[in-house]
Amino acid sequence: MPTTLRGYVAQTSEFRAGRGSARDYLDETLARIARLDPEIGAFVALNKEGAISAADRSTARWRDGRPLSAIDGMPVAIKDVIETADMPTGEGSLLFEGRESYRDSASVHALREAGAIIIGKTTTTEFAATHPWHKTRNPHDAARTPGGSSSGSAAAVGCGMLPVGLGTQVVGSILRPSSFCGAIGFKPTVGAINRSGSYDHFSQSCQGAIGATLADTWLVLRAIADRAGGDPGFVGLAGDVDFARRTKPRLGFLETGGWSLTSEGARKAFTEAKARFAGIGIVLCGRAEDSDIEMAEQAISDAHALTLAINAWEGRWPLNTYADRDAAKLSPAARERLKTAQAMTQGEYSELLARRNAARAAYAKAASRYDAFVTLSACGAAPVGLGSTGNPAMNAAASLLGCPALTLPLMQDEGLPLGLQLLGGAGRDAALFEVATWVLADAFGRTDLVGPG
Amino acid sequence: MPTTLRGYVAQTSEFRAGRGSARDYLDETLARIARLDPEIGAFVALNKEGAISAADRSTARWRDGRPLSAIDGMPVAIKDVIETADMPTGEGSLLFEGRESYRDSASVHALREAGAIIIGKTTTTEFAATHPWHKTRNPHDAARTPGGSSSGSAAAVGCGMLPVGLGTQVVGSILRPSSFCGAIGFKPTVGAINRSGSYDHFSQSCQGAIGATLADTWLVLRAIADRAGGDPGFVGLAGDVDFARRTKPRLGFLETGGWSLTSEGARKAFTEAKARFAGIGIVLCGRAEDSDIEMAEQAISDAHALTLAINAWEGRWPLNTYADRDAAKLSPAARERLKTAQAMTQGEYSELLARRNAARAAYAKAASRYDAFVTLSACGAAPVGLGSTGNPAMNAAASLLGCPALTLPLMQDEGLPLGLQLLGGAGRDAALFEVATWVLADAFGRTDLVGPG
Repeated sequence: MPTTLRGYVAQTSEFRAGRGSARDYLDETLARIARLDPEIGAFVALNKEGAISAADRSTARWRDGRPLSAIDGMPVAIKDVIETADMPTGEGSLLFEGRESYRDSASVHALREAGAIIIGKTTTTEFAATHPWHKTRNPHDAARTPGGSSSGSAAAVGCGMLPVGLGTQVVGSILRPSSFCGAIGFKPTVGAINRSGSYDHFSQSCQGAIGATLADTWLVLRAIADRAGGDPGFVGLAGDVDFARRTKPRLGFLETGGWSLTSEGARKAFTEAKARFAGIGIVLCGRAEDSDIEMAEQAISDAHALTLAINAWEGRWPLNTYADRDAAKLSPAARERLKTAQAMTQGEYSELLARRNAARAAYAKAASRYDAFVTLSACGAAPVGLGSTGNPAMNAAASLLGCPALTLPLMQDEGLPLGLQLLGGAGRDAALFEVATWVLADAFGRTDLVGPG
Repeated sequence: MPTTLRGYVAQTSEFRAGRGSARDYLDETLARIARLDPEIGAFVALNKEGAISAADRSTARWRDGRPLSAIDGMPVAIKDVIETADMPTGEGSLLFEGRESYRDSASVHALREAGAIIIGKTTTTEFAATHPWHKTRNPHDAARTPGGSSSGSAAAVGCGMLPVGLGTQVVGSILRPSSFCGAIGFKPTVGAINRSGSYDHFSQSCQGAIGATLADTWLVLRAIADRAGGDPGFVGLAGDVDFARRTKPRLGFLETGGWSLTSEGARKAFTEAKARFAGIGIVLCGRAEDSDIEMAEQAISDAHALTLAINAWEGRWPLNTYADRDAAKLSPAARERLKTAQAMTQGEYSELLARRNAARAAYAKAASRYDAFVTLSACGAAPVGLGSTGNPAMNAAASLLGCPALTLPLMQDEGLPLGLQLLGGAGRDAALFEVATWVLADAFGRTDLVGPG
């Protein structure tokens, strides 16, 4: 079912000459959505009229040689926890279906300022957590989950409906679905993208993007940070990526606490990837070879449990006020999280933060001598069934550490997509994209996934 | 017009014996509001029925010897930028008058869990910034402003309508109105009170309290932090205050950048306060005596301008999406701030944050050898007129520094209230309350303002 999609920014250089236009691109996008989404169910809302009108304005700007940005005219889908003035924001919750906020989030407004086209809202699990009220399907196998919580954005991009969807991640909500759906997924350094106007208020929450190419993914987020900055108090995603840079990176290997849960097929695929790196002279150092990596591994071995405990306390509100309003409209999982939170104390939370800080310090030490760490993006292929969105065990480390993490659709398990994960040093997001460029182009020969135009 | 109000927690010890009750206290509170508020205009909404029912439940708990907390039954007013499930949240904006959120903020929910009574919503300037659409009056002189942006909470507490109102501060929005209205006002260390569900998203924003006594003020915030913690990623207000502690504190003096704007009367009042300290053996060291203080003074000399610049960038959103919706409903001041923001760059913001960090480091060095710094809480008495809420120049330092600041109603200018400001070290909020206890009781003989019961 997935169709091949050329990235957006790679095409824009031809727009002035009339070879394609933002309107043409949008028309194709809408046609693909019309064809594919009835089975996938990635979208909860579409604003076709608004999109067409925005595409016509963008077409004129490109023709005049005055685009507002590199992503002018790019259709972007928005995860439905992020506010949009022209579409409701339901948070995947029975409590908020159809709720209008009449305002754009900081990121959505920045995208509009950059000329991007806000085409629709994509499904999310309830409150971007675990329960999938919307039964979005994996485009590579309709019997399987697309992953979550950024389910719709990953499914839509993964089957070529459109080039980029915004997502959010606090545990594994960008990287896991991207891995399951065969898309590029990027969770920036914590604080790098302004989350204002988005319902993701956890201290590890990040807004990020799921994209068809590295360039599309990066340029969307960079356009946002340029106009909306990072979270208040954070400078935000900065720097530029040189997609032509081809410096062999220093790569390490991290198991993370999730490794023991990976499938045999996933580990086999990773062994093949390692062989490919070895073939071009890169041996991945791991815990056995580097004592700093060993210390980091120990510090993140319980990243998943630690993350869930931190999130539990931070999620006490708003679940408590939502339960007051109508507990029957919360999933059993949400009610369970609230119960956990209500049994916690401020003192316990203080200890959890101390452990997180220690893990960040151990990781920073190890990361200072590597350009990136490589590992699996998920425990394996997307699991069968739509009742769960799969295990985020391989993603909790980067979320806990607040460091940038990318997944690249370079491997397979059970004949289905599986991502290669790259973890960078906190704040070195642009550098991580240059590592990814090298991995895609030089190690895997997939320049089509770089796509800078 | 102001009436004398005994603090709330001081009375609760007698509730079990039937000498007074939460219901009695509420009835008096409602009577005072009915008598005073028609002229003051501190409230935009009251929930009398809900309050009465909550007070009856609290009365029963005290009688049974099972109060939910030290503040069980305390009537608390909520600044109208903070969400409440039972009352609209208008943000003092023409765009949002009467808007229902159907949920409590983290702090309001925590207050209800602690048994406190959410009695009503108090006026705020538009978006807790500068423009006062609501013309709340100063209870000590109806021709004067109560200050802003926490105008209603300060006016209501300052004239004895009720013991505590929640406020927020990003420049001078708690301390200035508290000084003008003759109340205690406290802005905690940045991050100390969970702001989730409150429309104050700036990096310097704090939720705090305006109270009749030190104990009422502290215990309300401590009850919130116990149940809702700090902002996500922050432990939150911690520790306990020993209101019986009487250790002579090490005090310094800070001019801050606002000193040159203070009135002659205010400086005269401060000179008298200094003489009082000297009389009990405390000489306030200042920039001339201590080179660390000199460095701190230099670093905060432009705190007001720096704060406004930081806020401008951070306030780009949501003003931009509100302007899209209906720019005519924004005050000219809000439109001007948006224009300033739109002319700024991410790189400029990065430089502002670096300057703030440098100021915080200089202050931390000076603060390490003092229990608190003393200065004026406002440039003088509340100015005449309701079109402006006065100058926050004396409050910008603590906001920029992210440190705790308290104002105590101990002085006068033009025969009207003027606060003595205490600035503490970041994170040492409880210690600052112990300094304040000593200042009130030992230096000024005002044990009535301590009020632990």
